[in-house]
Amino acid sequence: MLFHHHGYVSTDPRVHPAAGVGIDRSPELPETMDVLVVGAGPAGMATTAQLAMYPEIMTCLIDRRPHRLEIGQADGIQARSVETFQAFGFAEEIIAEAFHLTEMNFWKPDPENPQNIIRTARAVDDPTGVSEFPHLIVNQARVLDYYARFARNAPSRTEPYFGWEFVRLEVGEGEYPVSVTLKRVGDDPQSGTNPGEERTVRAKYVLGGDGAHSRVRRDIGAQHVGAVSYHAWGVMDTLAETDFPDIRTKCAIQSTHGSILHIPREGGFLFRMYVDLGEVDQNDAGAVRKTPLEEIVRRANEIVTPYTVDVKDVAWWSVYEVGHRVTDRFDDVPAEETGQRHPHVFIAGDACHTHSAKAGQGMNVSMQDAFNLGWKLGQVLTGLSPESLLSTYSAERQPVAQDLIDFDLEWSAMMAAKPEELESETALEDFYQKTAEFPAGFMTQYPAGLLVGEATHQELATGFPLGKRFKAHPVKRVSDTNPKYLGHQHTADGRWRIYAFADSAVSSATDSALRRWADWMDSAESPVRRFTPEGKDLDGLFDLNVVYQQPHEEVELMATPSVFRPKVGPFQVSNLHKVWGVDPENDVFEARGLSRDGVVVVVRPDQYVAHVLPLTATQELADFLAPIFSTD
Amino acid sequence: MLFHHHGYVSTDPRVHPAAGVGIDRSPELPETMDVLVVGAGPAGMATTAQLAMYPEIMTCLIDRRPHRLEIGQADGIQARSVETFQAFGFAEEIIAEAFHLTEMNFWKPDPENPQNIIRTARAVDDPTGVSEFPHLIVNQARVLDYYARFARNAPSRTEPYFGWEFVRLEVGEGEYPVSVTLKRVGDDPQSGTNPGEERTVRAKYVLGGDGAHSRVRRDIGAQHVGAVSYHAWGVMDTLAETDFPDIRTKCAIQSTHGSILHIPREGGFLFRMYVDLGEVDQNDAGAVRKTPLEEIVRRANEIVTPYTVDVKDVAWWSVYEVGHRVTDRFDDVPAEETGQRHPHVFIAGDACHTHSAKAGQGMNVSMQDAFNLGWKLGQVLTGLSPESLLSTYSAERQPVAQDLIDFDLEWSAMMAAKPEELESETALEDFYQKTAEFPAGFMTQYPAGLLVGEATHQELATGFPLGKRFKAHPVKRVSDTNPKYLGHQHTADGRWRIYAFADSAVSSATDSALRRWADWMDSAESPVRRFTPEGKDLDGLFDLNVVYQQPHEEVELMATPSVFRPKVGPFQVSNLHKVWGVDPENDVFEARGLSRDGVVVVVRPDQYVAHVLPLTATQELADFLAPIFSTD
Repeated sequence: MLFHHHGYVSTDPRVHPAAGVGIDRSPELPETMDVLVVGAGPAGMATTAQLAMYPEIMTCLIDRRPHRLEIGQADGIQARSVETFQAFGFAEEIIAEAFHLTEMNFWKPDPENPQNIIRTARAVDDPTGVSEFPHLIVNQARVLDYYARFARNAPSRTEPYFGWEFVRLEVGEGEYPVSVTLKRVGDDPQSGTNPGEERTVRAKYVLGGDGAHSRVRRDIGAQHVGAVSYHAWGVMDTLAETDFPDIRTKCAIQSTHGSILHIPREGGFLFRMYVDLGEVDQNDAGAVRKTPLEEIVRRANEIVTPYTVDVKDVAWWSVYEVGHRVTDRFDDVPAEETGQRHPHVFIAGDACHTHSAKAGQGMNVSMQDAFNLGWKLGQVLTGLSPESLLSTYSAERQPVAQDLIDFDLEWSAMMAAKPEELESETALEDFYQKTAEFPAGFMTQYPAGLLVGEATHQELATGFPLGKRFKAHPVKRVSDTNPKYLGHQHTADGRWRIYAFADSAVSSATDSALRRWADWMDSAESPVRRFTPEGKDLDGLFDLNVVYQQPHEEVELMATPSVFRPKVGPFQVSNLHKVWGVDPENDVFEARGLSRDGVVVVVRPDQYVAHVLPLTATQELADFLAPIFSTD
Repeated sequence: MLFHHHGYVSTDPRVHPAAGVGIDRSPELPETMDVLVVGAGPAGMATTAQLAMYPEIMTCLIDRRPHRLEIGQADGIQARSVETFQAFGFAEEIIAEAFHLTEMNFWKPDPENPQNIIRTARAVDDPTGVSEFPHLIVNQARVLDYYARFARNAPSRTEPYFGWEFVRLEVGEGEYPVSVTLKRVGDDPQSGTNPGEERTVRAKYVLGGDGAHSRVRRDIGAQHVGAVSYHAWGVMDTLAETDFPDIRTKCAIQSTHGSILHIPREGGFLFRMYVDLGEVDQNDAGAVRKTPLEEIVRRANEIVTPYTVDVKDVAWWSVYEVGHRVTDRFDDVPAEETGQRHPHVFIAGDACHTHSAKAGQGMNVSMQDAFNLGWKLGQVLTGLSPESLLSTYSAERQPVAQDLIDFDLEWSAMMAAKPEELESETALEDFYQKTAEFPAGFMTQYPAGLLVGEATHQELATGFPLGKRFKAHPVKRVSDTNPKYLGHQHTADGRWRIYAFADSAVSSATDSALRRWADWMDSAESPVRRFTPEGKDLDGLFDLNVVYQQPHEEVELMATPSVFRPKVGPFQVSNLHKVWGVDPENDVFEARGLSRDGVVVVVRPDQYVAHVLPLTATQELADFLAPIFSTD
């Protein structure tokens, strides 16, 4: 956390000074805005939080609820989301508060007495260390609270406008081409608007994070394609006394009476059970949804025999049939018009993908939709990038949603199957372990295109696959000798990161591949010099880091190229946090398969690897960045 | 973090429901109170935070400042303090915000060119892993903010009353024996009191955390003994451009022109330099304190030659001569009256011990004073313990202060010495490394007495020395398979912890030393049954934990004695967080020298080891606890 360089900060350094639209921001919903976000769920809230870091951008988040969400349904937090929370500065706090999912156990009918279940397998969560962050369970309402706090403390001082319902939108022309009709729900002491009163606002861009029944999706004519299965589940968040020994461990329970997916919740006592209610007749017409709580509890007890679950309190419960749907496009530009005009309306989250809750994916994928879109809107609205950048959102995220639906169809079918219907006795745990990287959030790989380079030089950094998220790794900072994860400095500030992994020459070498690269990066041709807006510090758009092959004690800080020690802030003092040595016990060059001749890794603001290039390929780097930062 | 067991918690679980005096607490200073704390510095604030956890206790914290501290002088946070912050629930946040001190470097005159300094040694901070927490540097104002938030969110909803100055006190008789005169400083919109207006309040107990010039100390007639040395230092918190390569690393710099103790500060740019201003003539009469900032900067540049420090901004600076003073007793009972009456007035922090800032000790020792006193006041005021408990505060803490002064005298003399005056060339770094445990806060060892048992059975747990703080260690929780540090569950809730380390029998064994101990602990003779107040959960006063010798997978949770799985809260659901297995890769039995026949370790609410006993010594355990919880 870097602060004090604009003068002494006495209070919480997480609270940025208000700037731009955040100065004396009115609590009333304005008539025009840069971005209107519809729906304060995970997608809408995370996009708003990201945009709030741009003081130039007026983002307005509306929600029909009169106040913050009090209890949400989603609770699974994959490690990729915790990495994202780290970028938004609240990973430590939410980790302290959440349930940590470190193991999943499997229960099956006892072969000797099939009426009873027995534990047949334990599977360690993330045995390969796909992330340094844990897998968590915590209520969606708290995740939203943390994003909301980030947005409130960001320079633009963005807070949700509650009690506004989206009615319809139309896309036209002009500076604010999207015209949106909103309706007041309940009283608004700020505006004095009456309940039911409609108001039209105009926005440059609109994001629909308005859920499975999205009206924004309807208004842009996108198709939500898929079907509901005829298998019903009861779900309940309960406190109970029980002799079931794994009540605080995630379990897949298969019994002769059906299945349970059992998930302990934050706080140490509450747990969630997804209880199999069996196949539903196609002519059921929703009758299964009237299943009473008592029946779900009875079924749960039947399934966990010989154990009993004596339910004491139920915080929330529901009955549902699994649906699997994915939207064909995530913006307002139909396939036939692609390339002819740029999108002005987007959808994210449940508006794009609905599926079972079993794999704990929904909230996570929604937040990654947001992380993908936020900085793109930020760069376009601040004049850094052309509008064409925005087409990459649907192009990158729609296939991820399709993969998610495909994965979840398979997983939820297996969860609903009877043991004898599965391929093998261990089919469930085999699938769970084999596919672990998917639900952890790390299978996303964006293809080559405007924002991801061709894999021509991938062999120089095999552990940083192009299009996948930059996996953090331990290194040591030279200036303060602190062990850190390279990558954790990549906060959600909209900046690009460029990591120059040095060739084997030492830092004081006057001629080396690294030094020639640094000299170019400090020259007039440098993307840093060309694209960083005037008035910003030299690291205001690109955060350049260098990692030497030597341990930190062998790196001479003041001998390193000055482009890695930019002067920042009103006092123009050097930022000495960008020069790294290896951790000899866990060498990043070894662990990530980095070339000993050096390599440059470019990382997008959403933490995905954009390019891998040799230190000599300065022209290729310039050519890659030019179209992203052209403003034609 | 345990919650939801009193019903679903939608908002931040760190905010406790208001209870007792916290319900509808008036913002106005009352006329009578249980505890009056004078001074919202580290000692006063930490004591207040601890007391705020007792809903029955009305604690009032006053300070003459009109508002929160904006910039404090203290900044060194030893690992023991971070352990304490963990108990108060804000370690993660302050760690994220602070500077991490991982190495200290030593600079000396270059033998070949003595006008120039060169780096002669690097010393890793805490190379032996004395704590799992880091050594931090962060401004005192932020530490106070976190304690204040804890107190505000605690059941008693305690907030400081700013703008009240302590005038004098008298100790008399009755329910509220201490009569205290306060004076209003500035306006008080709440009370309508006028500036300068005096008010008398009455308290059961008073704590003076009112600094080096403590008036509370004066009024109880305690002696602040010691002297000021005639060596002056300039200290400045600055932003600067420099070519000194260790500007972000703590350094002891010895030069032919004098010394600097250099401390990087939080935020990545600010640093503090203690600059040697040399010996002061005894007849100086404070003239040295008029040394201008420019002179300090000039001296600093002279000392760091051949490097330069171009100061750009100064957040704070001062000139001082080192004083070393310790108070003879920390309460209002003179030596000759010890045992005849119980104390009602206490002092803590700088009121007790003043010394150089060089070892970064002041704030830390003050907070440990507070941690020692807080729970004792809590137990006496809630009727759990006799008033005689309070005499242990001065008895335990005064020797710690004396040790601190002795240590600091030695360290600050070495820091002020010229290289040639020291015993050997490496005397400074040798001393630093040899004594590392002291400044880290882990040399405190309370002697046997009412609150620490005799070391008769110490050999059963050599790694948990009696009277020293319970050093946390990795274990695995059986119920949720989570790796945790045993000890981190010991939060600042005023509860005692009893750890039963099992004999080698497995959890399901129907007869074992552990099971016999547990049966006794569940019987009518059990201290848990005898001393836990009616209406509290069975773990409301003693938090009983069991650690088996087997890995967590081999422990059958539901076969463990039920005393380790108490039913809690209005729904009486089992707390399953107290049963542990070893981490096979870091076995606590090996690491802490625990007997394979089992051992019981009793830990006080302030995390210090109170007793070590065999599993068979139930009577000894009962006898040890009886006088602490007798209310005769």
